[in-house]
Amino acid sequence: MPPAEKLRGIFTPNIVPLDNAGEINEAELRRYTDWLIDHGVHGLYPNGSTGEFTRFTVEERRRIIAIMADQTRGRVPILAGAAEANVRETIRACEYYHELGVRAVAIVSPYYYKLSPPSVYAYFAEIGRHTPVDVTLYNIPMFASPIDVPTVQRLSEEFERIVAIKDSSGDIPHMIRMIQAVRPNRPEFSFLTGWDAALMPMLLIGCDGGTNATSGVVPEITRKLYDLTLAGRIDQARELQYKLLKLFDAMIYSADFPEGFRAAMQLRGFDTGLGRQPLSANQHVELATIRDTLQCLLAEEGFTDEPVSGCPPRAGGVDPQQVSQIVQGVLAELKRRGLA
Amino acid sequence: MPPAEKLRGIFTPNIVPLDNAGEINEAELRRYTDWLIDHGVHGLYPNGSTGEFTRFTVEERRRIIAIMADQTRGRVPILAGAAEANVRETIRACEYYHELGVRAVAIVSPYYYKLSPPSVYAYFAEIGRHTPVDVTLYNIPMFASPIDVPTVQRLSEEFERIVAIKDSSGDIPHMIRMIQAVRPNRPEFSFLTGWDAALMPMLLIGCDGGTNATSGVVPEITRKLYDLTLAGRIDQARELQYKLLKLFDAMIYSADFPEGFRAAMQLRGFDTGLGRQPLSANQHVELATIRDTLQCLLAEEGFTDEPVSGCPPRAGGVDPQQVSQIVQGVLAELKRRGLA
Amino acid sequence: MPPAEKLRGIFTPNIVPLDNAGEINEAELRRYTDWLIDHGVHGLYPNGSTGEFTRFTVEERRRIIAIMADQTRGRVPILAGAAEANVRETIRACEYYHELGVRAVAIVSPYYYKLSPPSVYAYFAEIGRHTPVDVTLYNIPMFASPIDVPTVQRLSEEFERIVAIKDSSGDIPHMIRMIQAVRPNRPEFSFLTGWDAALMPMLLIGCDGGTNATSGVVPEITRKLYDLTLAGRIDQARELQYKLLKLFDAMIYSADFPEGFRAAMQLRGFDTGLGRQPLSANQHVELATIRDTLQCLLAEEGFTDEPVSGCPPRAGGVDPQQVSQIVQGVLAELKRRGLA
Amino acid sequence: MPPAEKLRGIFTPNIVPLDNAGEINEAELRRYTDWLIDHGVHGLYPNGSTGEFTRFTVEERRRIIAIMADQTRGRVPILAGAAEANVRETIRACEYYHELGVRAVAIVSPYYYKLSPPSVYAYFAEIGRHTPVDVTLYNIPMFASPIDVPTVQRLSEEFERIVAIKDSSGDIPHMIRMIQAVRPNRPEFSFLTGWDAALMPMLLIGCDGGTNATSGVVPEITRKLYDLTLAGRIDQARELQYKLLKLFDAMIYSADFPEGFRAAMQLRGFDTGLGRQPLSANQHVELATIRDTLQCLLAEEGFTDEPVSGCPPRAGGVDPQQVSQIVQGVLAELKRRGLA
Repeated sequence: MPPAEKLRGIFTPNIVPLDNAGEINEAELRRYTDWLIDHGVHGLYPNGSTGEFTRFTVEERRRIIAIMADQTRGRVPILAGAAEANVRETIRACEYYHELGVRAVAIVSPYYYKLSPPSVYAYFAEIGRHTPVDVTLYNIPMFASPIDVPTVQRLSEEFERIVAIKDSSGDIPHMIRMIQAVRPNRPEFSFLTGWDAALMPMLLIGCDGGTNATSGVVPEITRKLYDLTLAGRIDQARELQYKLLKLFDAMIYSADFPEGFRAAMQLRGFDTGLGRQPLSANQHVELATIRDTLQCLLAEEGFTDEPVSGCPPRAGGVDPQQVSQIVQGVLAELKRRGLA
Repeated sequence: MPPAEKLRGIFTPNIVPLDNAGEINEAELRRYTDWLIDHGVHGLYPNGSTGEFTRFTVEERRRIIAIMADQTRGRVPILAGAAEANVRETIRACEYYHELGVRAVAIVSPYYYKLSPPSVYAYFAEIGRHTPVDVTLYNIPMFASPIDVPTVQRLSEEFERIVAIKDSSGDIPHMIRMIQAVRPNRPEFSFLTGWDAALMPMLLIGCDGGTNATSGVVPEITRKLYDLTLAGRIDQARELQYKLLKLFDAMIYSADFPEGFRAAMQLRGFDTGLGRQPLSANQHVELATIRDTLQCLLAEEGFTDEPVSGCPPRAGGVDPQQVSQIVQGVLAELKRRGLA
Repeated sequence: MPPAEKLRGIFTPNIVPLDNAGEINEAELRRYTDWLIDHGVHGLYPNGSTGEFTRFTVEERRRIIAIMADQTRGRVPILAGAAEANVRETIRACEYYHELGVRAVAIVSPYYYKLSPPSVYAYFAEIGRHTPVDVTLYNIPMFASPIDVPTVQRLSEEFERIVAIKDSSGDIPHMIRMIQAVRPNRPEFSFLTGWDAALMPMLLIGCDGGTNATSGVVPEITRKLYDLTLAGRIDQARELQYKLLKLFDAMIYSADFPEGFRAAMQLRGFDTGLGRQPLSANQHVELATIRDTLQCLLAEEGFTDEPVSGCPPRAGGVDPQQVSQIVQGVLAELKRRGLA
Repeated sequence: MPPAEKLRGIFTPNIVPLDNAGEINEAELRRYTDWLIDHGVHGLYPNGSTGEFTRFTVEERRRIIAIMADQTRGRVPILAGAAEANVRETIRACEYYHELGVRAVAIVSPYYYKLSPPSVYAYFAEIGRHTPVDVTLYNIPMFASPIDVPTVQRLSEEFERIVAIKDSSGDIPHMIRMIQAVRPNRPEFSFLTGWDAALMPMLLIGCDGGTNATSGVVPEITRKLYDLTLAGRIDQARELQYKLLKLFDAMIYSADFPEGFRAAMQLRGFDTGLGRQPLSANQHVELATIRDTLQCLLAEEGFTDEPVSGCPPRAGGVDPQQVSQIVQGVLAELKRRGLA
């Protein structure tokens, strides 16, 4: 068997549409899968953080992958989120997804408990020894135990089945350190960034692609940013990165993740249903406002009409202040407390 | 029906013994349950953080409660950890545990995603509306979305079924703020601390009890500290709190939680088996050293013999340096992970 | 010369009144010094964090101590903040304050740069070798490089002139660890807490006193809390600790530190002048509101009249909700981001 | 008077050589100034964080600028660190440095106390109103109160004299947000990054230059990285960024800042003397080891000979593991202090 191709490009971590009963809306999920592929994403990434994998049952997580694999029929590679309660259950999920024909799985570092590097190593080593399918390590230190550089390096050297890392820290020097530590020995190992806000510079310093939530809402932009950057058209790429950042900020900081992305996905024409994490009455009201803001941003790009209530005037191109002002208020708080 | 009694005293969050196949060791779990009750703990708290609830499957979590409820047969109240993947699944767990006759459930705030206070409120409100059994809120900000004071206050005012909070932050002013905000309107609402390192001062500023992992290892000490403190024997209580802190530090900072507690439980004569989170070869070696240190500490209290290799000499009473030195090294680690 | 007495009791870290030109208001500083002594504080602590030592020049810092030492004339001990730009300058300050007859100096760990424990040790060791006056270590990890337990232990063992630690972390287990590590070898070494919110429990677990900003505003309460706690009148002490916490929260979280304390000091009849850190127009407006809130809290205790605009009604005793609600909003944010 | 030119390029934040008595070594400082200019840096930045401004007295800080301004004689622009104890003292420093003919001052946000955005605004606004010389805001959230995006925007709009921001957060999306908020209204406003580890990507997303400590040690590399990046030679720039990152990591994480840079500066032939922050005996030993590591790295680039003890073998080009392994250990430390 020839070696599988290196993971490259934009993989979409997709939200799962739900019906009125809160169950998986299979028809809409299939329609959304097609739409993403048609709009140019290089791959799909179900059961990621954006996909709210923790809020589904074991059986539901499997069903999501099964539906999407069936709908995709090999048109694009699938990276299947496979983390379960413990190593044994995770390996079982790897086996199942392998049978479904996914390109690879992605496994988040253990969460809830904050594990030390040796424990994180031991967890992935056990998986590396038994998985029948290629594995992407998933480092998201804001939610789960961090995977540090020596651990990535050691795992990459010891386990051929571990073929990539998705890193959502957004930390560029950290990404460079990983690439320096791994690439000389494993040139085919793939580095994917999960932080849309730095996609262009991440690609420029050596990343192979990204798993980017924005690509579930504006795949046209995320994909184009990828293409422009790889083509070395820096000025145009920069302009698009600025635009994407504004969208990303508006979606990620406006409400508890991933509500902003769900609201935006609705604006692109999908019936997402309500999320499983209940919202207070106030939050529902706020979300309506956020939806208007997002609609204006999407309307600027021609992806939708302006809301009935209209949008704030802007002096050509993108308006740099209004959205940003609100978002910055929250960000400021975060920074001030050393969080962001 | 008369109102249920207020939750008071020391509840043990118990580790679950596993057999060689990594499955629940029912016989040992039953024996451990009896031992805890016989050694004076006021209640049991299966499926807590010490109980590694996230590492078991849905079915296993239910079986653990079923076994312990069956074995306890009402001798002491059970606080059953009931958090599941989402609100609906959690409510189903509440219903099931209610049928088993537990005194109350304890539900950790949503984790992985970091939720804002309104989302945390909405989550518990939904549970408060539908639970058939009394609910204890579980605040453990180092692992899960924090439950802030206004949220506790509002939930306590709106939902009679929410009857207690277990707080593992160890933050005394925070505990006072909660008590000030809730007790005037809900005098029967119970405040339990999960931070053994501050058990005595927590009781003195108004807590009703604790869910303390040390009570799964040295129930004699944790219980006695509770009794001495309530009896106003401050000097003796302080001395015991110092002793408990040293044991607690040695168990909590020596290895990834809860391995130190598992090692100590073995020293008290239980066949815990290996945990489900794999350990590296080095970690197994380290754990042997930690076990010796713990054995010396437990031998000092007469709970076990000294290890064959002997213990460091001490000048009467507790030796203040040696353990502390090691512990501090590990505290440093903890800080590095933003935990302490 | 007989050994100096152990540092015990409540030391007041005092704000320095300024005149309209922004210069030290000597007359008011002298009047305030007398008032504090007359109201029962055990000692004075100029040039602390509350005293905004970083906002004065070298010469001003010296003058502040000189004025207060002259005014005190030995009635109570003075703990003089002596941190300067580098070790040499700090030792010079120690020499000068020694000539002024202060009981001891207090030296904050190096700040701006975050130093490792060996550097913190080396800094204080150099001071310990050359200081002519007793030294209190000052640990305030939210502002300066932390002083960890092994460093405190080592410094206490090597330098007789280092006689105390003031710890503002508010972390009770940390305080116990320090006491366990130091007291066996240095029984006269003093442990002072700078976190008013936990004064009573800190005293109960073994502290010798506190350097508490509330004692600059309500010395009657802080002192009484100290006396009740030492007398073992736990129920009354707890009630007073609750009251003090509410005042403390209102002063510390309502505005950038130490503006809330300055506003409250004005309400006790002192002409503080404006602080040196400029405030925006909005902040001045907010401060007026905060002053009203504080005035109501102080009026409840009989220390001042109610504001002209009146106070919110309360059902006897202290009203547990209104103030707390606002304060909690801020605290909640802090907690949520893992800061407090 | 024509408007001053925009701040662009690489500014060196320089360490100040000290003599055996710990006093400023004027001759060596003059020699170092010449060397930096001769090696191609675009400007000088005395009294920055690398320059340990907090460890000098007021008079010394002024003397450092005076010496360097005299030595430079207009060959390159000087950015003079001007932060003093309070607004009034800072404005006096601005006046003095203006008389010395510096191009601009750089003022760090207030530190020690953590100020809220309105206080940070009020501080810089007061300076903006009274400074006779152009001002660069200095944002270094790991050491001082953060300056958030709305504050930068507002200050840039209200005060013509505020002409630049130096940001050492290393956060690329944050830099983009600032540029988006400020550049439309103030196209000549300059954005400088203080985080060498991300210099290339920072320039690519729109920065005008950097104040980079590496340029005080390997000005050849930092300058070349700047030139290659601006010339759009991405592949070569990336390779150099990787190299610079390794040097940067080795200097910044190997010892308490800025000891690693001081050691490396010695290797370039300067008599730096010892720093003013005392080191323990162990630290001196460790520093010797670090110096050897740095010497090997510098020898690889041909800047110095290998140490007598030799260097570890490497398989052509840069060896990706050995240094990284050490660096990661120290990164772990850094994390532990909440710095990385």
